Parts: sequence; C-alpha cells; structure tokens
Amino acid sequence: MTERHAKAMKIHLTRRYPFSASHRLHSPHLSEEENQLAYGKCNNPFGHGHNYVVEVAVSGPVDPATGMIANLADLDAFVAAQVLDPFDRTYLNEEVAEFRETVPTTENVCIEIFRRLRAFPHAKLERVLVEETALNKFEYTGESQGSRS
Amino acid sequence: MTERHAKAMKIHLTRRYPFSASHRLHSPHLSEEENQLAYGKCNNPFGHGHNYVVEVAVSGPVDPATGMIANLADLDAFVAAQVLDPFDRTYLNEEVAEFRETVPTTENVCIEIFRRLRAFPHAKLERVLVEETALNKFEYTGESQGSRS
Amino acid sequence: MTERHAKAMKIHLTRRYPFSASHRLHSPHLSEEENQLAYGKCNNPFGHGHNYVVEVAVSGPVDPATGMIANLADLDAFVAAQVLDPFDRTYLNEEVAEFRETVPTTENVCIEIFRRLRAFPHAKLERVLVEETALNKFEYTGESQGSRS
Amino acid sequence: MTERHAKAMKIHLTRRYPFSASHRLHSPHLSEEENQLAYGKCNNPFGHGHNYVVEVAVSGPVDPATGMIANLADLDAFVAAQVLDPFDRTYLNEEVAEFRETVPTTENVCIEIFRRLRAFPHAKLERVLVEETALNKFEYTGESQGSRS
Amino acid sequence: MTERHAKAMKIHLTRRYPFSASHRLHSPHLSEEENQLAYGKCNNPFGHGHNYVVEVAVSGPVDPATGMIANLADLDAFVAAQVLDPFDRTYLNEEVAEFRETVPTTENVCIEIFRRLRAFPHAKLERVLVEETALNKFEYTGESQGSRS
Amino acid sequence: MTERHAKAMKIHLTRRYPFSASHRLHSPHLSEEENQLAYGKCNNPFGHGHNYVVEVAVSGPVDPATGMIANLADLDAFVAAQVLDPFDRTYLNEEVAEFRETVPTTENVCIEIFRRLRAFPHAKLERVLVEETALNKFEYTGESQGSRS
Repeated sequence: MTERHAKAMKIHLTRRYPFSASHRLHSPHLSEEENQLAYGKCNNPFGHGHNYVVEVAVSGPVDPATGMIANLADLDAFVAAQVLDPFDRTYLNEEVAEFRETVPTTENVCIEIFRRLRAFPHAKLERVLVEETALNKFEYTGESQGSRS
Repeated sequence: MTERHAKAMKIHLTRRYPFSASHRLHSPHLSEEENQLAYGKCNNPFGHGHNYVVEVAVSGPVDPATGMIANLADLDAFVAAQVLDPFDRTYLNEEVAEFRETVPTTENVCIEIFRRLRAFPHAKLERVLVEETALNKFEYTGESQGSRS
Repeated sequence: MTERHAKAMKIHLTRRYPFSASHRLHSPHLSEEENQLAYGKCNNPFGHGHNYVVEVAVSGPVDPATGMIANLADLDAFVAAQVLDPFDRTYLNEEVAEFRETVPTTENVCIEIFRRLRAFPHAKLERVLVEETALNKFEYTGESQGSRS
Repeated sequence: MTERHAKAMKIHLTRRYPFSASHRLHSPHLSEEENQLAYGKCNNPFGHGHNYVVEVAVSGPVDPATGMIANLADLDAFVAAQVLDPFDRTYLNEEVAEFRETVPTTENVCIEIFRRLRAFPHAKLERVLVEETALNKFEYTGESQGSRS
Repeated sequence: MTERHAKAMKIHLTRRYPFSASHRLHSPHLSEEENQLAYGKCNNPFGHGHNYVVEVAVSGPVDPATGMIANLADLDAFVAAQVLDPFDRTYLNEEVAEFRETVPTTENVCIEIFRRLRAFPHAKLERVLVEETALNKFEYTGESQGSRS
Repeated sequence: MTERHAKAMKIHLTRRYPFSASHRLHSPHLSEEENQLAYGKCNNPFGHGHNYVVEVAVSGPVDPATGMIANLADLDAFVAAQVLDPFDRTYLNEEVAEFRETVPTTENVCIEIFRRLRAFPHAKLERVLVEETALNKFEYTGESQGSRS
C-alpha cells in the first residue's frame, strides 16, 4: 500500500497566533541621542503596543495512519504554554525575563519565540515569523551569519 | 446642467487610519476584585498594547465642481493633528490627558476620538469606529441613551 | 462628574466569531428542476461547506464605572453556548434541529443565529451578519416586511 | 407553518465585485491651479489606476420556498452586464460615456454604479459602496441633500 | 538587446483560487478512540466544511516577447479542469476518488492538488499551498523524507 | 556577553508598500492578434490600472546594539526615492523610462523594482514581490535561468 512506503511526503504547516503586548525600544548600549535616532517615536519612555501575529512553520512527513504531520491541538498547547501565556497582555520589557536585558525589537521577539519553540517534539520547527503591524514582518529560521558589529 | 442643481447627491466617505498604543484597564470606581473581574488580563499593572485602526466616516453633498465631498488631504491633516499625532506610539493612560481620569477602554477611546473630530469643517462627522483587534470593533455616532448606572 | 450623568453615550460593539460547517441547499417546496435552478452546484446531494464568520453587533450605554457596554467574556460565553458549540464542525441540515425543516441558506442561518442571540442579557442585539465566503455577507436586524410569496 | 406568514424576515445581502480601471482627476470647471490643488498627484495628465471593489447591498424578504432573497446568479449577471463588463480594464475617462463629462472621482463612480444597478428586478438596491484603495471607501444610498455650491 | 539574451530572469508567480467543500476526518487505520483523539470535533460522522484557498506557485523565465512567464488564462483553465471543477461544492470523502481511500486532511488535499497540477505544461510547478482557515495553511513542494511510521 | 559574539542571528524583514498606477499590455514583438491573445482585455489601447503592493524582503544580522537589522526609516526613504515617487499615480508605459521599451507586465515591474532596490546599503535585498490584485503575486530574487525563447 502506498501509504506504508518508507518515504513519506514532507509537508510544511504554518499556523497563526495573535497576541497583544506593549514594549519600549531603548538600548542601554546607546546614548540618548542614538536611542532617539534609532527608534524615533518608539523610544517614548512610556512605551506603546501592538497586536502581534506569530506564524509558526513546522515540517514533517505525513503520518500514513492519520494523514497529518502533527496534531494541531499539540502545537496549540505548546505555543500557548511557551509563548502566548507569558507574552499576551504584557509589557514585554518588564514581564518577559529576556527583554529586561535585550531590547524587545520585533527582530529580538522573533528570535526569542524561535528559541522557545525549537523543542516542539512532534515536528521540526522551520521558521518563526512575527508581524508587528499589517505592513511589517520579521522572520527567523535559526540561521546565523557574521555580525557587522 | 445636472451638476448645478440645488440638490446634490449625498455621499458617505470612510477612511482608515492605523495607530499603535498601549493602555491599562483599571477603574478607580472599582475594587481590586471588581477590576480583575471586569478586565481580566487587561488589568495587568504594566499595561499592554494594540494596533488600533480608526475608521472615520463623514458625509456631505458632492461638490459639482470637484466631484468630491471633501479633500482627503484636509481630512488627513485634521485627523493627524487631532488624533494620530497625540495617540500614536503612546501609553494612553499617561500621555492623553482625558485618559488620566477616564479608563481607556476602546469604548472610551472611540468617544474621545469622536469628540476630537466633530469640528471637522469640510464634511459632517457621522461615525467613528475603532478596531482594537481584528475581531473587535466599537462604533460611536454621537448618540446618547439612558444610562444603566 | 460627567460620567455620572443620567444620559450615557451609546456605543455599538461588533465582534467576529468563525465556525466551520457544511450544508446542502435543497428545498422540499421545490421540484428537482427548481432546486437545481435555484441552487446550482449547492444542490449537490452530498453537500459542501464553508468557513462562516458571524459578526454579532450589540449596543448599549457605556457604564461609567467600567467604561464598557458589556463584558466581552459574557458575550463570548453566550455566543459559544447558543451558536458556536452547536454549529461548529457540523452538517447543519442534520445536526441543528431548525435546519431539518428549513433550508440552511445563509439567509436562514443568519435569522436562526439572531433568534438564538436575541436574549443576550447585557446589551441590546442590533444585528447579526454572516459571511459565507469572503465575497458574500447576509445581515438580519429582526425586521419584517411583506413577503412576495 | 411559520414560513407561510404574510410577513417575512427582511435580509440584507452584500456582495463584493472587483474590477481594475484607470482614471484621471481633472475638472473642466477648475483652473489648472485649482485642479492641482484639488487632486494633487491624481491630476497627472497620464492618469493612474486602481483595483476597485464594488459592494452591492440589496434587501428583500426571504422567500419561504427557497430561503433566499434573490438568486446570486441573477445579481451576478446584472452587475456584470451593467458595471463590470463596461468598467473592467478600461480608462474610465474615455471608455465610460458618463465620465467624458463628469470627473471620475470615486464619489461619482459610486453614484454612476448606483444609477446602473437601481433597476435590479429581484431585490431592492439599498447601497453601493466603492473601495478605491484598502484605506478609502465611498458609499451612496440614493439620498440627496442641499448642495454647498 | 538585453531581452534576447540566452539567460532570462526567473520569476515566481503565485495565484489564489478559492473553493468550498466538506470533509470528514476518519481513518480506517485507527480505532474509534484513536480517531476521536486524532481529529476531535472533525471526526464528527456528518462531516463539516471549509472555504479552502489554493495558492499555486509556478516559476519560469520571463518570455522576452510577452514579458510573462505563462499566460494566466492557461493556468486558470488548467487549475479549473484539474482541481476546481472536481472539488468545489463537493463532499471530498465521497466525490473525489482519492479520498475514498485516503483521509482528506488538508495535508492530503494539498498533496493531491500538487499531483494533479504537476503536469502544467507552461511553467514549473514549485509549490501548492492550501489554506483551510484563515489561521492554518499547509504547503507541499513535492519533497519526500523518511517517514516516522 | 552573548550579544557581542562574532556570529549574529540572521533575520529576514519584509515590508509592504502600496502604490497605484496604470499600464497597457502591448508588445512591439507581437502582432495585433498575438497581443490580443496574450493579454486579452489588458491589451485595451486606453490602458487600465491597479493598486499594486510591493513587498520588499531584506536580510541581515541583528545589530547587538540596536536589536535591528536595519532602520525602517532608511528603508522607507530608499524605497520612496527609488520606486514610490517615480511609480505612484503614473501611467507606467509613459512615465517610467524602462517601460517605454519593455512591456509593463507585473513580471517586468517586479524585475525593475528589484533592479532599483538592489543597492540598498543597510541590508541585503533578498526578494521583491509585487501583488497586482489580491489573487496574483509575482516574485523575483535576482535569479536567472535558460530562456525558452
């Protein structure tokens, strides 16, 4: 039966999760002027917020018995425990430990979410994409490259 | 010529403006338990944020000379000065004077924006609608009714 | 204090709820030919399905203590109990009692949802809108008019 | 049987139709300077274009036999013949007779589409809404009011 | 002339096609309990449905004469004949032969659509993506990997 | 400190920019009949238009000082100067020099935008994607392949 072959079709599944949070962009590595130049209105000391959308992309072979690569209920539970519960309706700079030291740009939010989801046991994490607004999205695949600094 | 008639067609124009801000839902009229019950996670002391979208609806007769009810550049400038500049990238509870005393629920944000736009000189303000997330929107037309309190 | 006035601002709140279901369009009042003419491919005996979105619009005065017209958690629980739990992931013709006798066109789905939500105790139901696809939406406000039949 | 009552539920149906066209905003009633002031970049002599979306809203009683207010196939055919075939992939100023004399602002496009659809025989035309971009929409219900000119 | 060079720019074209269908998730390889565990409400014996969107991605060199990689009319006709006509407004489990034996999860729907479109003669099929709801999408590129079963 | 490592995480940033323009599809390399066959209604001598959306994807290492791969203000200014100012509210065939000789299909619009953005100094241009309508998008990554002509 074709479904029992050793080779299975590889599927990518992408699932979207919204959360709402606030942040302030301010780096301890920069002077006041540099902070203002780098972040503009986003350097506002009171912070501001977004409706973020996280797109989690995982891949894996289609299980011939279920026709699925992973159970969505398992993925939902994992993302809720690792990301949504600790991030939703929070001020990221104060309430998520990593962002007490790292500036919560959407780039860094994306990397932190990837780090938290990497251990998903039922499929391979391929990519985390975070939409900050309808016009902006950031994507991390776990890849590194030479830094410019 | 039909365009010179005393009666002109009445058009409604709706235009969308995004802004990003943070807020905390906490009412001085409520106890801690009541605040928690009313607002849930949104009562978090650090606040959280949203990408709000304001839809401004105005109406007026079509000007036979221009074929327009108002110049969009005039509407954009008015909305920017009255709402977007003071609200975008802010913490509403601290940085918009009205919300130091009034809890910045999206209902109250909607009413405050209506109040600020009512004087638009080039067309009649019909309605202000505020989307808090993709699933929620609140709308105010200037109407009052008997309060339940 | 202005918030204590007898007159309160009236706000409309619209909230979106998705559900997925299948249906078959076939009327016992019509012949086979009339069914085919009225419904086309949607008369297919095996049925087909949609991702429906229900927009529930309620109105009420803003409560001066909470700044809200109703608690969204209350609305969500009511809509889940009355509509989403019985409709989601079902074949409407068989699993929702009303559609054993009434053909589940989106017009009738909209009316049935309105009927189920009319008793929401915390705000006035103004309108139920059902999107059948991204191109089609149907709306019911409780209004009647002379029938053409 | 309730479906046989003289009074039927009144439903509003809204259906979206996209078309793509180009236009130039230039009024013979205005000087060059006034045209530039009124229309800005849209006064460009070569014109420019949009993906317009027309939302057609009709209402009527639900037919107890079919559960529908009108057959979508009838509405689609009417809109195609009256609007989409003559407007899609055209330069409105030259190829739609009305816009040789009237400036094709979206206000006027909306009014002209309403005029063309008013005679739809199977339901009452309530409203024509035209989206010019994702941020702008114009709506006409057939209403007149005193002109400012 | 640069357009006549042997090397041409390679473009990817992605085109979206909606269809509406119903399905039931139930595998003959699983016990009743396992079916319930794997599919939850989607195991409902009466089935349910979705507005699916298929995104077909093809690539090819830009033809210097036409400036296109393929004629959209050709792609539309091929997708209609291979996928939309047989899938739209159907119950997939009964009316598409492959899903009488294979459980019509969106993973398997995606693979089956890829199989049907692979032979498109005018450009190379790169990817088939199927959206089941606004929150879920599945993607297949023809790739295999070691199965976990 | 981890942020000072020689290796930095590589992030992809995608940003959307809308513009509105008109074009006519007509190739000097084709006969009248071939033009009509290739382009259909889009060969209309008066042209027509679209609300295009350009998605610009750039990548780079996250700067440990700012937490960003590039300043969005820099990207916005570059895209405005190179693409939006010269393309928005224009008739591409006449007002963008390249399209006086090359037919402005969306494939060619996409390649021309890539060519104009390749020199962005603050991050690596990975991809330009142009949406012509909500159903169509074209993508160019700078890659060539053997032409079929």
